[in-house]
Amino acid sequence: MKKVNAGILIIGNEILSGRTKDTNTSTLAIWLNSIGINVAEVRVIPDIEKTIIDNLNIFRSTYDYVFTTGGIGPTHDDITAQSVSKAFGVNYEVHKEAFKILEDYYKPGQFNKGRQKMAWMPANANLILNPTSGAPGFNVENVFSLPGVPSILKAMIGGLKNKLVGGAPIISKTIGLNTVESEIASYITQIQNKNKEVQIGSYPFFKSGKVGVSIVMRSENEILIDKCVKQIEDFIKIKNIKILNNE
Amino acid sequence: MKKVNAGILIIGNEILSGRTKDTNTSTLAIWLNSIGINVAEVRVIPDIEKTIIDNLNIFRSTYDYVFTTGGIGPTHDDITAQSVSKAFGVNYEVHKEAFKILEDYYKPGQFNKGRQKMAWMPANANLILNPTSGAPGFNVENVFSLPGVPSILKAMIGGLKNKLVGGAPIISKTIGLNTVESEIASYITQIQNKNKEVQIGSYPFFKSGKVGVSIVMRSENEILIDKCVKQIEDFIKIKNIKILNNE
Repeated sequence: MKKVNAGILIIGNEILSGRTKDTNTSTLAIWLNSIGINVAEVRVIPDIEKTIIDNLNIFRSTYDYVFTTGGIGPTHDDITAQSVSKAFGVNYEVHKEAFKILEDYYKPGQFNKGRQKMAWMPANANLILNPTSGAPGFNVENVFSLPGVPSILKAMIGGLKNKLVGGAPIISKTIGLNTVESEIASYITQIQNKNKEVQIGSYPFFKSGKVGVSIVMRSENEILIDKCVKQIEDFIKIKNIKILNNE
Repeated sequence: MKKVNAGILIIGNEILSGRTKDTNTSTLAIWLNSIGINVAEVRVIPDIEKTIIDNLNIFRSTYDYVFTTGGIGPTHDDITAQSVSKAFGVNYEVHKEAFKILEDYYKPGQFNKGRQKMAWMPANANLILNPTSGAPGFNVENVFSLPGVPSILKAMIGGLKNKLVGGAPIISKTIGLNTVESEIASYITQIQNKNKEVQIGSYPFFKSGKVGVSIVMRSENEILIDKCVKQIEDFIKIKNIKILNNE
């Protein structure tokens, strides 16, 4: 089955300044993996039109799908819609359906100029409906533009599923071991070398006073993952290492 | 004063899979801003040697400073040091001082092969000392390689300060307003247009049942920021909008 790859563009000075920690990458990645789409790259870029256009053009020709987050609100620093329009060379204009949705959403007299800006989109964009706060996202070809506010983004991605065609879902299993990385590194290297089709990651953790290592195995093929799990169980038995948790 | 720009490469499949949320960008950005270095771009990339090398070479020629996080531990998926070596075309070899530090750090007999791997670095790298867990990071020219574990990264950046030359510190002020973005968008646009040298961002928030908007003003010049603050105070008085908090 063909591997389907996505790139994510996180648009926003607030992430680059450190003021806000990005959580949308994690939300999108977990959901995309579940429908068989791998996140190959994420870029965090500032609210600068040329930078957004350049990165959009690289991503949309490199990856099967591109997701942008941020910059689709009503204020002056929300320039994603106009940038996507320019990247595709289409008009930036009022989207009639989006205008109607927003007009209905607000009370009479409250659909002001700032709110109307959220109906401006690339010509002929497909809407991504927003069940929580009215203003829709939009989709042009393989580019999907979502808001930056995590709760709104979460509420919107459900509606995207039938627009995306993924490969086999990426399955992930984690074994938490009561050890430190350097005690097991050579064994895990051997297991990785014997199981090239499983991506094995090793991540130390420190929580509630416990030190441990999470071994994460990712593959489209659960049987191959289970083979790795078995090999790990074998060596930790010999080394007398306890399993802290299985996911 | 010249603007000093940095790029951050977050190296790690665990971020791209959504399993781990990156917080190192925020830690680095806040600290870099305080010493006058702007973060211009962040890329999250997988543990693939060619990808790491290609991005390193782009970043080190584009930005004044490059910071990498992740991939410097003892396991098979830790390939940052060998990738940095290849990007610079220098040998990947045992760093004598790092070896000595690690040898002293571990109890006799415990400095195994996995741990020794952490002393392998680009030839002639400068060490970035690690006050918490022994294994140092390293620096080659304008590239600084740090660990992925947030608590260790935090402990290590203090030691970097005298190796970096920033511009004027970037000052940031935030006013939290008891309103929604679309009510104030046109006023903030006007203020941005009148104050081109201040970067003004508008960010909606929802916390403890309150809805509000944070107006963030960033500049190297505090007087220019204060001018914006005054202009915001003027229009919210007219619009009868309350200030929720000032930072």
